[in-house]
Amino acid sequence: MASNPNEDWVEKVGRKRAAQEASLQPYLDQTPTDIDDSITSIADVATLAGRVAQGDFTTTEVVSAYIRKAVDAHQKTNCLTEILFDEAREQARQHDAYYAEHKRPVGPLHGVVMTLKDQFNVKGHDTSLGYVGRAFHPAQEDALLATILKNAGVIFIAKTNLPQTIMWCETENPLFGLTTHPLDASLTPGGSTGGEGALLSLHGSLVGWGTDIGGSVRIPSHMTGLYALKPSSGRIPYLGIPVSTEGQEHIPSVVGPMARSLSSILTATKTVISANPWTHDPRVLPIPWRQDQYHSIQTRPLVIGLLLDDNVVKPHPPIQRVLREAAAKLTAAGHEIIPWNASDHQACIEIMDKYYTADGCEDLRLDIAAAGEPMIPHVAALVSRGEPISVYQYWQLNRAKQAAQKSYLDKWRSTRSPISGREIDVLLMPTMPHPAVPHRCCKWVGYTKIWNFLDYSAVVLPFGRVDKGVDRPGMVHEPRNGVDKANWALWDVEKMDGLPVSVQIVGRRLEEEKVLGAAEVVERVLRG
Amino acid sequence: MASNPNEDWVEKVGRKRAAQEASLQPYLDQTPTDIDDSITSIADVATLAGRVAQGDFTTTEVVSAYIRKAVDAHQKTNCLTEILFDEAREQARQHDAYYAEHKRPVGPLHGVVMTLKDQFNVKGHDTSLGYVGRAFHPAQEDALLATILKNAGVIFIAKTNLPQTIMWCETENPLFGLTTHPLDASLTPGGSTGGEGALLSLHGSLVGWGTDIGGSVRIPSHMTGLYALKPSSGRIPYLGIPVSTEGQEHIPSVVGPMARSLSSILTATKTVISANPWTHDPRVLPIPWRQDQYHSIQTRPLVIGLLLDDNVVKPHPPIQRVLREAAAKLTAAGHEIIPWNASDHQACIEIMDKYYTADGCEDLRLDIAAAGEPMIPHVAALVSRGEPISVYQYWQLNRAKQAAQKSYLDKWRSTRSPISGREIDVLLMPTMPHPAVPHRCCKWVGYTKIWNFLDYSAVVLPFGRVDKGVDRPGMVHEPRNGVDKANWALWDVEKMDGLPVSVQIVGRRLEEEKVLGAAEVVERVLRG
Repeated sequence: MASNPNEDWVEKVGRKRAAQEASLQPYLDQTPTDIDDSITSIADVATLAGRVAQGDFTTTEVVSAYIRKAVDAHQKTNCLTEILFDEAREQARQHDAYYAEHKRPVGPLHGVVMTLKDQFNVKGHDTSLGYVGRAFHPAQEDALLATILKNAGVIFIAKTNLPQTIMWCETENPLFGLTTHPLDASLTPGGSTGGEGALLSLHGSLVGWGTDIGGSVRIPSHMTGLYALKPSSGRIPYLGIPVSTEGQEHIPSVVGPMARSLSSILTATKTVISANPWTHDPRVLPIPWRQDQYHSIQTRPLVIGLLLDDNVVKPHPPIQRVLREAAAKLTAAGHEIIPWNASDHQACIEIMDKYYTADGCEDLRLDIAAAGEPMIPHVAALVSRGEPISVYQYWQLNRAKQAAQKSYLDKWRSTRSPISGREIDVLLMPTMPHPAVPHRCCKWVGYTKIWNFLDYSAVVLPFGRVDKGVDRPGMVHEPRNGVDKANWALWDVEKMDGLPVSVQIVGRRLEEEKVLGAAEVVERVLRG
Repeated sequence: MASNPNEDWVEKVGRKRAAQEASLQPYLDQTPTDIDDSITSIADVATLAGRVAQGDFTTTEVVSAYIRKAVDAHQKTNCLTEILFDEAREQARQHDAYYAEHKRPVGPLHGVVMTLKDQFNVKGHDTSLGYVGRAFHPAQEDALLATILKNAGVIFIAKTNLPQTIMWCETENPLFGLTTHPLDASLTPGGSTGGEGALLSLHGSLVGWGTDIGGSVRIPSHMTGLYALKPSSGRIPYLGIPVSTEGQEHIPSVVGPMARSLSSILTATKTVISANPWTHDPRVLPIPWRQDQYHSIQTRPLVIGLLLDDNVVKPHPPIQRVLREAAAKLTAAGHEIIPWNASDHQACIEIMDKYYTADGCEDLRLDIAAAGEPMIPHVAALVSRGEPISVYQYWQLNRAKQAAQKSYLDKWRSTRSPISGREIDVLLMPTMPHPAVPHRCCKWVGYTKIWNFLDYSAVVLPFGRVDKGVDRPGMVHEPRNGVDKANWALWDVEKMDGLPVSVQIVGRRLEEEKVLGAAEVVERVLRG
């Protein structure tokens, strides 16, 4: 079905949703098999691949189990967009045939199931970015990342929901509607990679790939209890991944994985980087996977900067509690914790916010106008914000950004442990100032977006949950500003009880191996 | 002397030139010593440093010898701007005192003399960029590159001339005037790092540091017979180096060394990268010096793409001849030469040219207006070119650039040697379509700027000279376009006889070690 320029946006939405339903129909009401849970309870990519490689499961069994979970997750949270079940099953049959004939897997990730935010091109399927106007324009070829992973043996079973324009920390658009939190439909799973958050936490995928220009893989991971990596730009290929405000490269959007285990994040990242993506994508830096850096950080006590509060929006009690618990455990394990000064974060964010709307939102307006669809409220507010600036002003903005990046680097390098005298290895801090919140209530993403501005590397590690037996129910904080006030108005220990919380571990620019190695250390201390 | 906003630009120029003369005065009419030539005839940094380290020369002797040569070069070509002789001699005295006391050098480049284009900040001295309005605004601190090299033992004796705005391939500005070619004052030494070209070729410095956004270290090196490296962006720090159109980062200006030997280029580059500049400059990538890549390319026959003509401006006869000679020698030495298709170069350059004036030249206008100085003709032409574009259009330009970069990478990777089936290692091609030409006659820099657009790495290797006994005197070429016609109108074998010619060796993005290693191989074949 091709795109029809005269078609009403509502008709187009109807047609798109009908097509989605038709793709889902054959997979509804399937009875789970005995082995389904034993497959989808495996959280580690290498473990599952190993089990398939030694013949414990066929790829068809793995794909079928995940499809059943994905259907359930979709029915519960509306997390899927493009349904790739038929072709996934066909690929699974081919994998199994190859395995039967050659007695070995097609690649190191033979039989591993992954999913993609509806921003990655998959040949023959739409890449909506949450825009009605992009429906019925199927991609001509796969994103490079999808090609690399398919070559390693991965099977993609679906694409997942995101907000209109992508540029929001929740997940809603006129084309596919609203995605809800797995634990409470009145809450958002976060965004923009919210479809993955909902799907992964319900075991409907093993690794989900998202993008992050302000927190979009980290925020849904925090809200749904997942692990995530936001690398610096230039490590994981963006080729074949359309994006809003495409061509704006000064605050670069980056690709990152989300999963139910840190080891899966590691395997996924290593697999992509080890395929030398810079030989296909000119924006990828020729930096191979640096195993020495991943290892060496794990061989000595860490020096950790602790950021409890960015001085703009104070985190809710469980966020603060969990961070203090983490810091106490790390100290007890022999690591050094020193306070981190975030007094410059607000100034960085003020520079950063000017980039998103530097074109007067012409890019967003054009995409929305393509189908005449309505704007979701967040987008309407964004688009109303600010006039376009000139290219000369844009260059001055870059100069301000560079100066801020230089100051931050100098601050990092001059901060020393008073005990060992050593430099900071990583920061430990909140991901968000709150757990999952009701739809359309997310406001402050300053804890994540600062690292996009600086292009630093960051890992999200789930740790703890809201606990009404421990966390203070009442509001004991004098609001500093409107956003801080709004954040504290959301605090509701009864409603939030049991929601996941996370910590964020931050390394400097292009320190993906170091931050993953440090996350490994922190993970062991927190679990052990 | 502070800046006076009511001062006429002519008065300011007069005051600046008087200050320069006063700094030079004590060094005029000095009698060369016996050892001067034995010092300044050493073209290799490591050799000179070794001689000083073993006590053959004092640093004072080295600095004094170079100052004498620099004064001569300046009197001949007007190549200097800021005169650092007094402080260089004071540093030399300190070096010698340190050496006398400790019996060892202060660093690996103890006593090595270098110079800087008048764009690198040196504390207490102006950084003019060729603008009158920037005179009498001394820098507050040194550029990071200067600090790194000073820490290694380098002594800077002067800064050198460049064109107003920097954005031209010749060397003239209202503040310091015109720099001329060492072999013929009616010719340009090229630009924008033309002061370095004139000074280095007259042995007035051992290594000169320039910047390159379209060919600015390569063009003067080609015209004056020097070696040069243009790295990709992110290898050599740009911190503390003001530039025109600052904040425009999509066609990045890069720092590169110029010298009389390839080994000096190598030592200078390694020294800077080995100082981990990314720990001070957030724009530098954390890629250490990769000695393995430098070596491995030297251990096997090269596959070389040969670009004789970019299909826009056909090079003069000696340029073509020298390239064919180089290709023949390389083939005879066992390397594979295959033709390179440059049919996409013109389209890349059309995208690229839109960046320089994307702000409607507001940046240049403001700097020129600061002192009310006149525009040199090239700048007047540039500023009259084109209206400002919107930020949205600017983003579309980036998309076009990214697509062109992807196409070029695919072309490179899909081009194979018909003999070995291997991929291209490097390209061999002209640096310019002509040798040195009369002032204000440089027009086509497409042979160099294409690699700024793609952000590839390139080395210039001097090879051959115009030879009226060999090169065809007459015009035998049917002009393809206006620039091609203008280029061929410049061809004059009598006037150009004896001028240096070069070849350019090009590697892909961030392949500095590989392209330097390949240059080493080519150098050995061509000299051997």
